Amino acid sequence: MMSAVRDATVPAPQADGPLAIIAGGGAIPIAVAQAVERSGRRVVIFPVRGWADPAAVAPYPHHWIAVAQAGRFQRLAKQEGCRDVVFIGTAVRPPLSSIRVDWGTLRLLPAIARAYRGGDDHLLSGIVRLFEEQGGFRVIGAHEVAPEILMPQGPIGSRQPSEQDRADIARALALLEATGPFDMGQAAVVADNHVLALEATEGTDSMLRRVAELRAQGRIAAPAGVGVLVKAPKPQQDRRFDLPAIGPRTVEEAARAGLAGIAVVAGAALIAEPAAAAAAADRAKIFVVGVTARARS
Amino acid sequence: MMSAVRDATVPAPQADGPLAIIAGGGAIPIAVAQAVERSGRRVVIFPVRGWADPAAVAPYPHHWIAVAQAGRFQRLAKQEGCRDVVFIGTAVRPPLSSIRVDWGTLRLLPAIARAYRGGDDHLLSGIVRLFEEQGGFRVIGAHEVAPEILMPQGPIGSRQPSEQDRADIARALALLEATGPFDMGQAAVVADNHVLALEATEGTDSMLRRVAELRAQGRIAAPAGVGVLVKAPKPQQDRRFDLPAIGPRTVEEAARAGLAGIAVVAGAALIAEPAAAAAAADRAKIFVVGVTARARS
Repeated sequence: MMSAVRDATVPAPQADGPLAIIAGGGAIPIAVAQAVERSGRRVVIFPVRGWADPAAVAPYPHHWIAVAQAGRFQRLAKQEGCRDVVFIGTAVRPPLSSIRVDWGTLRLLPAIARAYRGGDDHLLSGIVRLFEEQGGFRVIGAHEVAPEILMPQGPIGSRQPSEQDRADIARALALLEATGPFDMGQAAVVADNHVLALEATEGTDSMLRRVAELRAQGRIAAPAGVGVLVKAPKPQQDRRFDLPAIGPRTVEEAARAGLAGIAVVAGAALIAEPAAAAAAADRAKIFVVGVTARARS
Repeated sequence: MMSAVRDATVPAPQADGPLAIIAGGGAIPIAVAQAVERSGRRVVIFPVRGWADPAAVAPYPHHWIAVAQAGRFQRLAKQEGCRDVVFIGTAVRPPLSSIRVDWGTLRLLPAIARAYRGGDDHLLSGIVRLFEEQGGFRVIGAHEVAPEILMPQGPIGSRQPSEQDRADIARALALLEATGPFDMGQAAVVADNHVLALEATEGTDSMLRRVAELRAQGRIAAPAGVGVLVKAPKPQQDRRFDLPAIGPRTVEEAARAGLAGIAVVAGAALIAEPAAAAAAADRAKIFVVGVTARARS
């Protein structure tokens, strides 16, 4: 029967084998692993040395890898029967001089070197292309296998943004849209219509600590409790990876920076431990809200 | 005779009286005072407490003022016979709570409060309007009275940007043009096509120290000696004040951040102590160049 033939050529989800998770830092990789296991699929974590938290990955089947150990990853992932790969978690761009490539990576080096120049998107999409074309893997987005980590529309926690907060959110979204083509940060802080900080290489937590410092030095006109952190994906980014992410720690850093709250683009940003993040937001009396990024001309 | 009448209605330069210089921090206000005195016009400096350097203003006739002492400034400037006012030097936006207004400022408060919201341009143009409409002063640009502090086209010092440097400069200029409408910083750092930092509230020196830190942490892919600091005026800014400025200290901070050089828009940025800046650039083996900001569509 036709349907039997169709069943044989279109494998059921479990036929995909375990999911390989190449894990950087932060809480999101573990949230993804938990969600995927809850869905009944096995995971094998490949934590990246220096980025991932050893204690957090310990309960899961895992193999440590170093940056540029594409060879080691591909060998182990194939042994584990993994075909699907998720890249997830914070990554720090390492200095080229510190990278010790393995043999499997060596033959990829010219392509990696090309990918290494330019912005993060360029680097990541170059590496993904290599994995897919030369490794036979399928690179998928974390939110495809764990949709519950996508930020929902509206507030989590009990606070809502005010009218002024919404104006600051709109300004930050417009700014991030303007800087999107430059493949830089995905986060900005705006307070009372004034751009306080824009993320480039330093990362969101570091940017928030800068805002906290400027505030402590009395260099921010807006009083404490005014201002928003906004995170949005880059306009042309490959949504399979490097989506902006927040979690309980982001909430705590935003509170320390004296902000009123956090807004991220719903459905295009990840939230680690939403319940813990909502509790942290309520404790800190700040809002965390999923918003719509409206296209502007 | 007509010419005599014309002479009487169009005052000669010396008829303008001494120039009032409201001086913030950095080397530029003193460079302006020197240049104006060389041109034969007297200056009276009004250094702002907390911003201006007491030792640097000591050799000049001066009266200290505090932020929001518009009343004190206007009284003293009139006593000194000043009609023209230059605002120059770095200013740190003070917290509203720290400002002690004087009586002369009090009646201006509603207008100042309106000007205080939003970006720096908004604040400055609001204050200038007040000085002109209510104080009877004429606010002029420092470069109008001291054109020698305008950055010239081409390199100062002996180094020239490479082809890669020129590409990084072009990218930074395009980025600053994109962020211009948001009335934020006037400086960016780009290395090997990658945006490392963009200035918002923190100031150029602080941004350069951030880049130096990221480099020390091994978080910048480009090797030392690659990357440029670019400063450009905001597209709609009132060129009478707050033009981007560099000086010997900027050169030193850029060198410490491991950059190849500094580019600023010729004729639209100020350079304090050009000879000292050129010497510092040669010592640090970096370039300092005045470039054309090409309009992009």
